[in-house]
Amino acid sequence: MPDARHVLGVDVGGTKILAGVVDTDGKVVCEREAPCGAERGQDAVIRTMVEVSKAVLRDAGLGPGGVLGAGISAAGFCDTRAGVMLLSPNLPGWRNVPLARRMSEGLGLPVVLGNDANVAALAEHAFGAGRGVDEMVYMTVSTGIGGGLVLGGKMYEGVSGTAGEIGHVVVEVNGRQCGCGQRGCLETLSAGWALAAQGRELARSGRAPKLLSLAGDKPEAITAREVFDAAAAGEASCETVLERGRLGLAMGLVSLVNLVNPAMIVIGGGVARRWDEYIAPAVNIMRERVAIRKSADDLRVVPAKLGKEVAMLGAAALALQEGKS
Amino acid sequence: MPDARHVLGVDVGGTKILAGVVDTDGKVVCEREAPCGAERGQDAVIRTMVEVSKAVLRDAGLGPGGVLGAGISAAGFCDTRAGVMLLSPNLPGWRNVPLARRMSEGLGLPVVLGNDANVAALAEHAFGAGRGVDEMVYMTVSTGIGGGLVLGGKMYEGVSGTAGEIGHVVVEVNGRQCGCGQRGCLETLSAGWALAAQGRELARSGRAPKLLSLAGDKPEAITAREVFDAAAAGEASCETVLERGRLGLAMGLVSLVNLVNPAMIVIGGGVARRWDEYIAPAVNIMRERVAIRKSADDLRVVPAKLGKEVAMLGAAALALQEGKS
Repeated sequence: MPDARHVLGVDVGGTKILAGVVDTDGKVVCEREAPCGAERGQDAVIRTMVEVSKAVLRDAGLGPGGVLGAGISAAGFCDTRAGVMLLSPNLPGWRNVPLARRMSEGLGLPVVLGNDANVAALAEHAFGAGRGVDEMVYMTVSTGIGGGLVLGGKMYEGVSGTAGEIGHVVVEVNGRQCGCGQRGCLETLSAGWALAAQGRELARSGRAPKLLSLAGDKPEAITAREVFDAAAAGEASCETVLERGRLGLAMGLVSLVNLVNPAMIVIGGGVARRWDEYIAPAVNIMRERVAIRKSADDLRVVPAKLGKEVAMLGAAALALQEGKS
Repeated sequence: MPDARHVLGVDVGGTKILAGVVDTDGKVVCEREAPCGAERGQDAVIRTMVEVSKAVLRDAGLGPGGVLGAGISAAGFCDTRAGVMLLSPNLPGWRNVPLARRMSEGLGLPVVLGNDANVAALAEHAFGAGRGVDEMVYMTVSTGIGGGLVLGGKMYEGVSGTAGEIGHVVVEVNGRQCGCGQRGCLETLSAGWALAAQGRELARSGRAPKLLSLAGDKPEAITAREVFDAAAAGEASCETVLERGRLGLAMGLVSLVNLVNPAMIVIGGGVARRWDEYIAPAVNIMRERVAIRKSADDLRVVPAKLGKEVAMLGAAALALQEGKS
């Protein structure tokens, strides 16, 4: 008999699989991790996903029928309605894989599928900083910048499942080259990779001696972290990089607020841990520059509450949402 | 006995009131227009709105109880749930006016209220170019640039009713001054006012002789229309203005697609009549520059179908939507 108080969440990324049994409050009852072993091919990966899922259900003292359902979070493009993984940058060769059906056959459970950024937004809405907030945007500022939307209390994916690509909002008509192939995306000014790349350039050209020293005199070892630390230690060139990063972030947030007008923006990711140095000043600039004051007055911007389990919890939240509807 | 096949739509703007009886297919059975006379104060305006509404119902052979309900489109900020007009740039002194309740008392009908750009989006969804398309963005490119969102088949307003402010998506971190008080908004490159302002500058500085001549040698008479006509006649400086306008528009569309991932963008407004010269090339640039190809493949961009009645029809569509739910 299904237990309406628990669901299974499974997060499959390029390097690992994380499966957890989660209750309706978002409490993780049990969890297990396994290497993904993507090079073994999709059949082997799906077999491992099923095995890890069964193991964590056993840990929780529940059989496969002992939960309401399961959700999968996948790093890649998903057709959520069909439960099909269309393409993944992290899982080579995965194309049009009916992942929800195959997991469902393996587990004997209803299974739903979602993109990792979209379900992470749902996780913060269901269990994290956005509880009770029906118009919410989740944003991760890390090596890259990504995000997801929760609108009207539900995960909003757009027509192709690609809504919420906040990192690729354009903030400079003729800006720097972005990893997505385009120019002037928010990421090119404000993502961890862009801060690190600019730091390396500065270090190589002799314009950031403190930064170079913090990286053990190896420019290639510079990450966003060293750029922040050097700026904090008074390296003016690094402070300029951060200043541009904050301004870019502020403009991306302005576009987001002017278009979507959410009640809350939840920001997570490694670079967002530099809240006071980076996120908070950008938010202040944004508040002065939105087109309509009321949309800034009605908006809260808060740090994410969930950590590295966010995608697994989002998969669980998706399963709960589907179980209810 | 209410007639489930008809609703009343009322559009109140700064200069006129347009009321129409509309059937469930969006066919306008009867309509009437009256000057708004905003300077007479809100009581007089509301009285006129009630009178015009009653008159158009009589024209249609229906009493006030002869329609399912009424919708109002207002140029200003609205609290849709409460039916309150918070503030209007076009109706001086209107602050926190319970417009839906007052119209409902005057007409003896259920009345709902929406912002003009938001209900225009709903009109194109219900009766126009976006029929049957549940993830749709409406955009008006005119003197200014505005818009509204229809997500999941419903009007999406955001938490403050300000969602869809596409004209104020930022496309240049340190761009030109915008009318909204900020810098680098899409409007500053691509709206009719921005094209006209740049045209006037060119004409005054002697860099656009054809343009000046088209405007009867009066720089102050230059509008976007003359800039388009001069460019078509070979004025290179005007073509450069349009080129920047198209690129800005393309970048605004990229941000919109990357964030919202709609199935359709419907574009109306006076400047959008220059479809082949202005909108189509911008759409082509956008298609090459979105972050994820699939979101461009899944997208159609089409001209609006509804004309100057769009807001009145949107008010009617809102009344129909509310009548159903």
